Amino acid sequence: MRQSQLFTKTRRNAPADEVAKNAELLIRAGFVHKEMAGVYSYLPLGLRTLNKIVEVIREEMNAVGGQELIMTALQDKELWSRTDRWDDEKVDNWFKTEFKSGGQTGLAITHEEPLTRIMSEYVSSYRDLPIFAYQFQNKFRNELRAKSGIMRGKEFLMKDMYSFAQDDAQHQELYAKARTAYVKTFERLGLGAHTYVTFASGGIFSPFSEEFQTISDSGEDTIYVDEEKKLAVNKEVLSDENLATLGLSRERLVEKKAIEVGNIFHLGTRFSEPLGLSYTDEEGKRRPVLMGCYGIGPSRIMGTIVEVFADEKGIVWPEAVAPFRLHLVALGKKGDDVTRYADELYDELSAHGASVLYDDRDLRAGEKFADSDLIGIPWRVIVGKDAAGSDLFEVVERASGETAKKTREEVLALATGRAA
Amino acid sequence: MRQSQLFTKTRRNAPADEVAKNAELLIRAGFVHKEMAGVYSYLPLGLRTLNKIVEVIREEMNAVGGQELIMTALQDKELWSRTDRWDDEKVDNWFKTEFKSGGQTGLAITHEEPLTRIMSEYVSSYRDLPIFAYQFQNKFRNELRAKSGIMRGKEFLMKDMYSFAQDDAQHQELYAKARTAYVKTFERLGLGAHTYVTFASGGIFSPFSEEFQTISDSGEDTIYVDEEKKLAVNKEVLSDENLATLGLSRERLVEKKAIEVGNIFHLGTRFSEPLGLSYTDEEGKRRPVLMGCYGIGPSRIMGTIVEVFADEKGIVWPEAVAPFRLHLVALGKKGDDVTRYADELYDELSAHGASVLYDDRDLRAGEKFADSDLIGIPWRVIVGKDAAGSDLFEVVERASGETAKKTREEVLALATGRAA
Repeated sequence: MRQSQLFTKTRRNAPADEVAKNAELLIRAGFVHKEMAGVYSYLPLGLRTLNKIVEVIREEMNAVGGQELIMTALQDKELWSRTDRWDDEKVDNWFKTEFKSGGQTGLAITHEEPLTRIMSEYVSSYRDLPIFAYQFQNKFRNELRAKSGIMRGKEFLMKDMYSFAQDDAQHQELYAKARTAYVKTFERLGLGAHTYVTFASGGIFSPFSEEFQTISDSGEDTIYVDEEKKLAVNKEVLSDENLATLGLSRERLVEKKAIEVGNIFHLGTRFSEPLGLSYTDEEGKRRPVLMGCYGIGPSRIMGTIVEVFADEKGIVWPEAVAPFRLHLVALGKKGDDVTRYADELYDELSAHGASVLYDDRDLRAGEKFADSDLIGIPWRVIVGKDAAGSDLFEVVERASGETAKKTREEVLALATGRAA
Repeated sequence: MRQSQLFTKTRRNAPADEVAKNAELLIRAGFVHKEMAGVYSYLPLGLRTLNKIVEVIREEMNAVGGQELIMTALQDKELWSRTDRWDDEKVDNWFKTEFKSGGQTGLAITHEEPLTRIMSEYVSSYRDLPIFAYQFQNKFRNELRAKSGIMRGKEFLMKDMYSFAQDDAQHQELYAKARTAYVKTFERLGLGAHTYVTFASGGIFSPFSEEFQTISDSGEDTIYVDEEKKLAVNKEVLSDENLATLGLSRERLVEKKAIEVGNIFHLGTRFSEPLGLSYTDEEGKRRPVLMGCYGIGPSRIMGTIVEVFADEKGIVWPEAVAPFRLHLVALGKKGDDVTRYADELYDELSAHGASVLYDDRDLRAGEKFADSDLIGIPWRVIVGKDAAGSDLFEVVERASGETAKKTREEVLALATGRAA
């Protein structure tokens, strides 16, 4: 895409009330727009990045047999009353409103209830199980404070997958599959080295749930990391008894601040019992379905990536999620040889399906480099006066700042992600 | 995809309170689930179809230079007060709710206000214009009655594009481009022959707006069609004076029921003036930006396609939007020769990236055919006892019911959409 056509520009300042580094940088670089506290729109660069994150997650959910659907924001009060999660005394972050046709409704805080009801219409026999179903859908949470930028919004995108199993053995198999898919997802998103499976409080159906926690000083959680085992324990369950159960020793644990980027839960029959989701087993007996739940917030991932990798110059995107792979920066003026040469290179890269943002604007080199650093595309290719003659291009890696001369074929390989 | 793995099944009946044909068929075929009146979730087959529709629209909006973003459901009361569209006396279908942090918010009925505010942060000079920006985002409308299935929901997906121009000449150019893109979009979606550009009431900035109306007895609108000119007039503006202005003659008009599947508006300075979206022109004068607005509802399109093409056996999808291109129906039982043969064909088609739903279930042929008719995939390939020997397959076209024998290469071509 030609940067002269992009409607966003970089800004010197984020809104004065913005305290989170992720939102501040994303606003300044033109990725998001703050509508209100905790409510952000995604501008073209931001939506491209969010969609890259979504696509990685989708591929991994599909790989374990997940079936994608999409449920609604508006929720049926009657359904949530049956699981005792409608009452504001029980769940304190609902947005509630009224139908003009009569009756109350609320904006989905999560989707266990509606999906359990949907499944109750399709599951009748053990032959219908197991099932993995998931969606990417907005959640709404009426947070009192919203000070973590896009990491904790009042309206935010969530990937929530649910598993449905006959018995504990089948449930554990699904849970293990989802857990492995999560580990792989965070690796592909570039967060693998910073992210720990972390034991946290469970519920009535299991002693622990597992969180995926990414180390960052801006995190709201405190965890204790065993670096060797690549495991951690959330402060909320740190006790000698629990450590013994988990086979961890207190001496090896290091306290860290971390961001919860995913979590996986055993739900047991918490929802299937009150909502009547049951099946007939091989002996003809009715049994409740066992459920699991697996959440990742793509918008929170986006904010976390900014927090973890940004430097003093701006954002640093890992290749897998960058809005473009390559930032082509022409140091010419409209109509001159340098610009003509850069135009041709851009056309050639585009013809090969490359992912390129082309800075074709009439601006000084210093402004272009500062914008490029702020936006954070992984590879910058500079076309100046010397490039036109030699057909060797100066390439800067955003993350390391390292510079190298590359051939046209090598630039094409960087821009497409294919081998040179 | 193997149908034995799909978690939905066809159902004999839709909920008793469902009166719209589109929702009744989509529920019975397992495409959507009714959460409440006017609120529908999209199950795997439905989401695939909806995404096909979205992708066609996205391609056409990108082709005219549209930049995609995504705004929020939660809306800023203060912003809508400035355009005088917050008051329930003025706009009667808001869902409103309260922030726990204080103050009212509402769920987006449309997005002119937030996008105009976003643009006011990026547009300052005539050099920044023109701009096309669009999104696919849910709208919420607190409808008193919801009896048109997914064609008029309380929560529904909308593609809304907006144009931003310097002056009327530039605006008219953008408007004409968007209009052409709309005509092409409806053609690609399979609705071209049934859809008419229809003059409807304008506003302060133009005598008429233009609607895209698809002929259907289930439509809520009455239009008057000039078949020869491929134009129509909405009943709301049918007058001798208007007909004279439009160069249409009353004798040639035929009254029809129709569904509004799209609309395009001249907004003038209706939003840019109160929200301060202006630019500096070449002479250094500040001028308000001229806007246009272009809407298509993908979920309404999906419902309309069902209404227009369904027959007594079920849904009939045009190829461009079908959840799968080909329905492979094996008439064998697990482990027998016919099933082995069908398995191999399915694997071969899948290896070529074909779009196939494979009915590998242990059911009677009659049940499989009835399900296949209800689901409405364009091409059905039947693998029975004779196919295994001859390598010629019986192919049924869903729309016409016509049957033909096809070779393996021809089946592959149908399943991939590539030439044989």
